[in-house]
Amino acid sequence: MTSAVEPDLALAASLFARLEQMSLDPPGITRDAYGSGEERAHMLIRQTGRELGLQVDSDAAGNTFVTLPAGPAPLPAWIVGSHLDSVPHGGNFDGAAGVVAGLSVIAGLLRHGGKQRRPITCAVFRAEESTWFPASYVGSRAALGLLAPETLSLKRSDSGKSLLQHMEELGLQPERVARGETWLKAQAIHAYLEIHIEQGPVLDKAAVPIALVTGIAGSVRYRHAVCHGRYDHSGAVPRRFRSDAVLGVAELAFRLDQFWAELDRSGANATITIGEIATDPRFHAFSKVAGEVRFCLDIRADQEALLETCHRHLLALINEIGRSRHVTFDLGARSGTRPAPMDGRLRARLHDLAAREGIGALSLPSGAGHDAAVFANAGVPTGMIFIRSQNGSHNPLESMDLADFHAATWLLAALLTDDVEDQR
Amino acid sequence: MTSAVEPDLALAASLFARLEQMSLDPPGITRDAYGSGEERAHMLIRQTGRELGLQVDSDAAGNTFVTLPAGPAPLPAWIVGSHLDSVPHGGNFDGAAGVVAGLSVIAGLLRHGGKQRRPITCAVFRAEESTWFPASYVGSRAALGLLAPETLSLKRSDSGKSLLQHMEELGLQPERVARGETWLKAQAIHAYLEIHIEQGPVLDKAAVPIALVTGIAGSVRYRHAVCHGRYDHSGAVPRRFRSDAVLGVAELAFRLDQFWAELDRSGANATITIGEIATDPRFHAFSKVAGEVRFCLDIRADQEALLETCHRHLLALINEIGRSRHVTFDLGARSGTRPAPMDGRLRARLHDLAAREGIGALSLPSGAGHDAAVFANAGVPTGMIFIRSQNGSHNPLESMDLADFHAATWLLAALLTDDVEDQR
Repeated sequence: MTSAVEPDLALAASLFARLEQMSLDPPGITRDAYGSGEERAHMLIRQTGRELGLQVDSDAAGNTFVTLPAGPAPLPAWIVGSHLDSVPHGGNFDGAAGVVAGLSVIAGLLRHGGKQRRPITCAVFRAEESTWFPASYVGSRAALGLLAPETLSLKRSDSGKSLLQHMEELGLQPERVARGETWLKAQAIHAYLEIHIEQGPVLDKAAVPIALVTGIAGSVRYRHAVCHGRYDHSGAVPRRFRSDAVLGVAELAFRLDQFWAELDRSGANATITIGEIATDPRFHAFSKVAGEVRFCLDIRADQEALLETCHRHLLALINEIGRSRHVTFDLGARSGTRPAPMDGRLRARLHDLAAREGIGALSLPSGAGHDAAVFANAGVPTGMIFIRSQNGSHNPLESMDLADFHAATWLLAALLTDDVEDQR
Repeated sequence: MTSAVEPDLALAASLFARLEQMSLDPPGITRDAYGSGEERAHMLIRQTGRELGLQVDSDAAGNTFVTLPAGPAPLPAWIVGSHLDSVPHGGNFDGAAGVVAGLSVIAGLLRHGGKQRRPITCAVFRAEESTWFPASYVGSRAALGLLAPETLSLKRSDSGKSLLQHMEELGLQPERVARGETWLKAQAIHAYLEIHIEQGPVLDKAAVPIALVTGIAGSVRYRHAVCHGRYDHSGAVPRRFRSDAVLGVAELAFRLDQFWAELDRSGANATITIGEIATDPRFHAFSKVAGEVRFCLDIRADQEALLETCHRHLLALINEIGRSRHVTFDLGARSGTRPAPMDGRLRARLHDLAAREGIGALSLPSGAGHDAAVFANAGVPTGMIFIRSQNGSHNPLESMDLADFHAATWLLAALLTDDVEDQR
């Protein structure tokens, strides 16, 4: 690695340790969105920014912005960001790695005399994890003035209090969020960059430290689907007379997976997941055919057309299985996000810089959603760097090697001080 | 119908109405095993027996016996029985129909001068439904001195109190049950007969009032099976790296059902049911691959060899699916019962008598378990008559037409006063 701008790894290590300490909630850590866990983490970042002599700002939604100004004729800014909330009992790096990366790079630039010609803002978003409020990217949407006002009435899954109430408890200004007021000004943004742990095993299995993300998958989601059959005696009712909801969902899951296997062989980038399934404890029994099964469904794909292909297949399957098994499917409300392709020019430049710096980098789609998707879909040129991680994410075993973090931040620093980029 | 021995249908109607009244627990009725619901029902039967001038006995386990004595040189007795407990919020006829049938036939014989040459005991068993204590046929096993003493420490699912405690609260004598003491004497039993609603739709769809049961299915049961996979991010982990427990169980359910469909086409009598399934609410999430699924499995068949075929197929499937999907299955403790074929001579005689009396009767296997299985497996010649029913059983909509009950009791009365049987 030849770039002269060394990120401040000591600061990074210290921030990771302090974040972990203040969020400990065994097993793992918890930084609850718009709760004390996330708030303490933002306080740490603001305090660190001030100690570094940087400009520290907040917007009405409680997003934090730590800015390294540029020289006398500043160009539109780099935004480098991620989030600080975690899932309950999650790991320390999902989200936080991107925030810490931004601060380490900025601190490195400060220490090395700051040859950047664009302002660099480390953006720290709120409530990225949809486990707290049933919505994705709350903070980054609000940062761009794009949060639908009705989102403010969504209730947090554990507290039962609305997003608006949670914001008010923290002294934030939800009425300004509803009006779309922002601190970030879209016209003053050059590009958005996000570093994030991979959350999957691909880099680890391939023994490569980082990946440049090709795009962030969009999704079709049914959070509250039901298959209705009929409760019957498990011994007394012959097969031909049954309406078995367990078999309805089992066949759906099995055949969706067969469909996915075909997509996979064709090289299409999609995931199909049924993560929750349950018969009704009030009515199910060991000796009863199940009359109802609740389940959820999460389909993701990197192309809008592929998402729609998956969705059409889903609808055809529930029709066919409904008829053959005498069950009915009620998928409930559909939600989801649009696929967000990363900026081709930024990707190409990052690949060039990685090659120049001798950093191994794969190209990978992101099946997981990230705040970067909000920027990309808002028309901001957006790039993402994945860091190799171990044991997935959203769990206490989530792990990341500081050497891989170093490679990612080194590459980011190279981009932020790149003449090619500055002259665009 | 030409037999002179008309069952007492007015008594039957009155008993059904009083049982329903005293057990109302909307929706449906509840007669909790070794609780107040079952106890009140036994009191009604004992009171009715005494009012009819019959001999009323109990055994240490609280089973009730109402006996019509025979003439001067009595032969071994007919036992006609069933149970009075119900599932929670169940229907009024599952079990009770057999008890009321016995009393109606006895009352009819009394009224018509009693031409029977064998004593006839209406046996009323406790705790047939395994929903209360995790054991089948508690009362009828105890009635034959066959209840394993450790059964007394099983806890009732709702109260958490042991069977022993429940027996003591009713003033019963669990220590005598544990020693195998009985009121019924096996050597004094000629045969055991049980009338029961079908609990399935076969008679109703075929428009036939009764069926003569060929045998009671045995079972292989896994009440607490688990499929272990690994929790992963639903977007970030490619298909080839997943260990998806939902797909493990879905494929198992789907392929067991395919296997059952083949058995069905070959005419084999079996049922395969997964009645409960659940991901773990503490760890599952909409956006996670499921790392664990709990489920139960109930396989029933009328032949021991068929049960074993099904079981071997199950084991082969979990091996194959475990390997291909990188999941492991832990089936937990196996329980179950042996298939109990009904006595061929009794079946043939019942068919002859049904033909003589002009009562339409199918031959059907019983997929559901019944107290009759205990008698058959203890070597007592055993027969069962199914009554057409509607809406299954174990639910508030369970229904039975009194005209069909009449046909079944008429046939029973014909058997109990049959010269061919008496001269054996």
